[in-house]
Amino acid sequence: MMRVADIMTREVVTIRNSATVAEAAKLMSQRGVQALIVERSHDLDAYGVITIEDIVGKVIAFGRDARWVRVYELMTKPCIVLNPDLGVEYAARLLTQTHLHSAPVIQSELLGIVSVTDILERSNAIEQPQETLLADQIRDLSEKARHVCQENGPASKACLNAWLAVDALQAEAARQRAESLEQTASEQYYDEEYPEAFKDREYEAWCSG
Amino acid sequence: MMRVADIMTREVVTIRNSATVAEAAKLMSQRGVQALIVERSHDLDAYGVITIEDIVGKVIAFGRDARWVRVYELMTKPCIVLNPDLGVEYAARLLTQTHLHSAPVIQSELLGIVSVTDILERSNAIEQPQETLLADQIRDLSEKARHVCQENGPASKACLNAWLAVDALQAEAARQRAESLEQTASEQYYDEEYPEAFKDREYEAWCSG
Amino acid sequence: MMRVADIMTREVVTIRNSATVAEAAKLMSQRGVQALIVERSHDLDAYGVITIEDIVGKVIAFGRDARWVRVYELMTKPCIVLNPDLGVEYAARLLTQTHLHSAPVIQSELLGIVSVTDILERSNAIEQPQETLLADQIRDLSEKARHVCQENGPASKACLNAWLAVDALQAEAARQRAESLEQTASEQYYDEEYPEAFKDREYEAWCSG
Amino acid sequence: MMRVADIMTREVVTIRNSATVAEAAKLMSQRGVQALIVERSHDLDAYGVITIEDIVGKVIAFGRDARWVRVYELMTKPCIVLNPDLGVEYAARLLTQTHLHSAPVIQSELLGIVSVTDILERSNAIEQPQETLLADQIRDLSEKARHVCQENGPASKACLNAWLAVDALQAEAARQRAESLEQTASEQYYDEEYPEAFKDREYEAWCSG
Amino acid sequence: MMRVADIMTREVVTIRNSATVAEAAKLMSQRGVQALIVERSHDLDAYGVITIEDIVGKVIAFGRDARWVRVYELMTKPCIVLNPDLGVEYAARLLTQTHLHSAPVIQSELLGIVSVTDILERSNAIEQPQETLLADQIRDLSEKARHVCQENGPASKACLNAWLAVDALQAEAARQRAESLEQTASEQYYDEEYPEAFKDREYEAWCSG
Amino acid sequence: MMRVADIMTREVVTIRNSATVAEAAKLMSQRGVQALIVERSHDLDAYGVITIEDIVGKVIAFGRDARWVRVYELMTKPCIVLNPDLGVEYAARLLTQTHLHSAPVIQSELLGIVSVTDILERSNAIEQPQETLLADQIRDLSEKARHVCQENGPASKACLNAWLAVDALQAEAARQRAESLEQTASEQYYDEEYPEAFKDREYEAWCSG
Repeated sequence: MMRVADIMTREVVTIRNSATVAEAAKLMSQRGVQALIVERSHDLDAYGVITIEDIVGKVIAFGRDARWVRVYELMTKPCIVLNPDLGVEYAARLLTQTHLHSAPVIQSELLGIVSVTDILERSNAIEQPQETLLADQIRDLSEKARHVCQENGPASKACLNAWLAVDALQAEAARQRAESLEQTASEQYYDEEYPEAFKDREYEAWCSG
Repeated sequence: MMRVADIMTREVVTIRNSATVAEAAKLMSQRGVQALIVERSHDLDAYGVITIEDIVGKVIAFGRDARWVRVYELMTKPCIVLNPDLGVEYAARLLTQTHLHSAPVIQSELLGIVSVTDILERSNAIEQPQETLLADQIRDLSEKARHVCQENGPASKACLNAWLAVDALQAEAARQRAESLEQTASEQYYDEEYPEAFKDREYEAWCSG
Repeated sequence: MMRVADIMTREVVTIRNSATVAEAAKLMSQRGVQALIVERSHDLDAYGVITIEDIVGKVIAFGRDARWVRVYELMTKPCIVLNPDLGVEYAARLLTQTHLHSAPVIQSELLGIVSVTDILERSNAIEQPQETLLADQIRDLSEKARHVCQENGPASKACLNAWLAVDALQAEAARQRAESLEQTASEQYYDEEYPEAFKDREYEAWCSG
Repeated sequence: MMRVADIMTREVVTIRNSATVAEAAKLMSQRGVQALIVERSHDLDAYGVITIEDIVGKVIAFGRDARWVRVYELMTKPCIVLNPDLGVEYAARLLTQTHLHSAPVIQSELLGIVSVTDILERSNAIEQPQETLLADQIRDLSEKARHVCQENGPASKACLNAWLAVDALQAEAARQRAESLEQTASEQYYDEEYPEAFKDREYEAWCSG
Repeated sequence: MMRVADIMTREVVTIRNSATVAEAAKLMSQRGVQALIVERSHDLDAYGVITIEDIVGKVIAFGRDARWVRVYELMTKPCIVLNPDLGVEYAARLLTQTHLHSAPVIQSELLGIVSVTDILERSNAIEQPQETLLADQIRDLSEKARHVCQENGPASKACLNAWLAVDALQAEAARQRAESLEQTASEQYYDEEYPEAFKDREYEAWCSG
Repeated sequence: MMRVADIMTREVVTIRNSATVAEAAKLMSQRGVQALIVERSHDLDAYGVITIEDIVGKVIAFGRDARWVRVYELMTKPCIVLNPDLGVEYAARLLTQTHLHSAPVIQSELLGIVSVTDILERSNAIEQPQETLLADQIRDLSEKARHVCQENGPASKACLNAWLAVDALQAEAARQRAESLEQTASEQYYDEEYPEAFKDREYEAWCSG
């Protein structure tokens, strides 16, 4: 699974919030980009974003003169910000759910920008879909959990933790397919192999114990 | 003011509705486009559109395998269709209000495709904003209306029609600026020049007369 | 399957964009319609639509005086436009997805108007649902495809095209039921009858060949 | 100002939640209504509503067979409910803000149904806009407040209450015009006539005193 | 199943529509509430609601001075109103579908206020989910229907009514699970036990008979 | 102006994505919180959030049994993430624009959680509105810019930069009031004091020079 940092464009084209929309349009054309990051106006300020859609939908669609409209009037701010370590699949969801074409990548400072086009063209999400990766990981971690439990015993904390790691991935995979889980991997394991676990002690204490 | 036909891309890249999303992604990459028009399945069918956003937001964002998802599951259909004679400013509004990046141009048959990027880069809407064009047209038509009324008299049908043409453009300009009009050009003219118009007859009959 | 042209109302009630909302309300009452088409203000202009909902929701709901608000302040413009040859099922989706009650039917010129009430009352969509029609057509075209392939051989272009026509309808039917297709009709046919097709040549070349 | 009870249709057409959509469509046609109230299934249940838009948008638009879809699958429930004593202007806002064409009128029991068409055609909101009524009421109450304060003195509770009634209407009127109020009527009165009010005591105690 | 009246807070904190947002914020803090009901300005007026979200999202988010913004500028009005006899599950849906945290409970007069937190903490919806209650009721009513039909005969009105009551609950349960019903309980009963019912007479007459 | 870090709750209550909704509801009650952060399932995973609204709107509202629904089925994920250094006003906008009650604060690791209630009760945004702070800062920076320009000359880079800092704050302030700026501070300064600036060189080069 690739990270946002692996596919982002490091060279970000920025613009001042007080620039005119005509300047923004020219800059987009010259640099061949579909979005500009809008610089912050002070230290606690948020970043903004202005896109082709903003210019077309809020200036051209109303017949306005782009020399008299400024960037701050159109931009989306505060904009959604991506963490460089986030998996591209999660970035894909965040961008499209908020109807955004691009978002800045920030960690303490501005590191880059990622667009939906970058996600399609630079990631390997078409060739290596996450559902396949997750299925592989679930199989590997389940096998590992069985070993850990054999070595440490079903009552061990290590065994429980190993199964909870499987549960987490399994729940994530089920969420992507919009499915319910009747029983998680750990529930199935303890049901079959160690039913006393739930007799001896209150389940929740067991889990957080 | 430019028309949709002036800025559209005539060479449209199309795809079958039963193709896989992996095929669609490959086709977009190869042809360097952000949207494909989906062919119709029968004569009374509507066209569809599939975009990069659809693939990123509905397949990659859920970790799905693009080889097992088909175009018809993602496409927008029926999609908004543009008339080749429509002014680009109206196309700009139609596209952005419906959150679309592109739409097919159709008149009896599929003529081309227009995107928001085309509107920004190929139209002259930044250099010649519609508000300026409308202001010029309103001035010209007002002048013409005064002449027509002088020649034919304020009670003439020709005079009324000339002023109603000004009213229409004035209302359109006011709409773009989200402004109210206390009095239209015709109301102002008849108020000042020919107040009897509204005494003699019921106004509505007058207008539709 | 009926077309938009079969159910539309040909006599369209129109209004000027500079008319007052009081005039629009009166006209709707007199003519017994729930929507008026707003005339264009110039040649490249788009049509608009004003409905009872617009008057109730934007004037009455705010206690405003309808004699001082004009049609252009309330109308939806550019409005969605319907093609006379579109199937009524697609018109149904386009209207309701955009929360519209009515839309003009246009091909070069204004031909009529269609409302959701027209679709319910004048079409045969309740008696002859499209899913039944599509199922019949799929069965007929599949039979025809088998004949074509027997006559011309499975490797023929004619055979492929005949199956692709079935695929298109099948995908459309699956889309309406929000279902996935594991295998399309053509995939199934070649899998069973002519597996060499996919051995001999690269599939995509085959399809577009 | 008219009330919901003044314009509602008392004869409500209802349907069972388990009826088919084909039955609902037939009933709408026969009775000439655009919406049916869906009966409750038990005592604590809410009412539902099914409209022409629901049938066109959720059944016809997907080509489904209306004999196999039931009312409960399409209806809006719980639906917005109107109080018979509510002013029609507020009903207008509630209906259109929630994109509804009709809503049941209920007080302990089902009393009637109100649609946007009823609001336009049966109310006097076009002839007597609420903004005019409010302006008249504000003028009358202000005059009354001046009298009350002259009689009882500016420091009296009666004087304060009289001005607070003006403030409330003034705020309502300002809200409908989406305007800010720098000073309310009471603030202006005390500022001019009785500035000591705010010197002597803490303002909030004064108001709630 | 609990009713709105069982979980509502009877002591409602109200505020005038002309009060400042600074006063509203102080009142919320002092009384420890997340929403205030806004008093009506006249007899036919609707109630309003102002919440923490309104203050944070419409005043603080824009850096505005809360002493110069008034309650009427932020409030939601007319607000959704709950009936005291409504089941809490329906209140839950109404509140969350309209993105509201709280709503007033009204029957002729203002009786209380209900929030989503009240629904979670004061109702028994977690311990006794409605789906279990409905399943129990459907089983009980079905049994009762069988008895009624045995006593009165399958052709009796009493028998039909008993089954229609089952149908209604069954449809409600199916709606909550977003499921279709191929056959309702009554359809199944008559199909198996009394098929002549549908031979002898037209079904609809039968049902409403 | 306060930062997110100044008002956040550092002790975050988290839950596993595979836990049941009944467990989540119990945990919220016990800890007195309205939202839980959902732990990540792997290193590149995003954080999730589950709120009271999710439980009420997606489980109780459909009568579902909370012991058979899991946290991953309800949570919002990926959720919006706040930077600890962001000003609270921007956090206010981000939360309310996305209809969220709470969001995690993250910088490399999970630092805390911030809700709209925290913003109202722990920040000083009511007492010290940002518009006042910005007005003060704009006045101070303008004064400073005048000094810098006097010392270094109007043609100096230092002078330009000083004015651009004023422009940025001015644009930010105008954005919050939804106002247009005819002329920014720098444009006004150079217009009045140093018109040659725009004669000598191309403006854009000047700005980025």
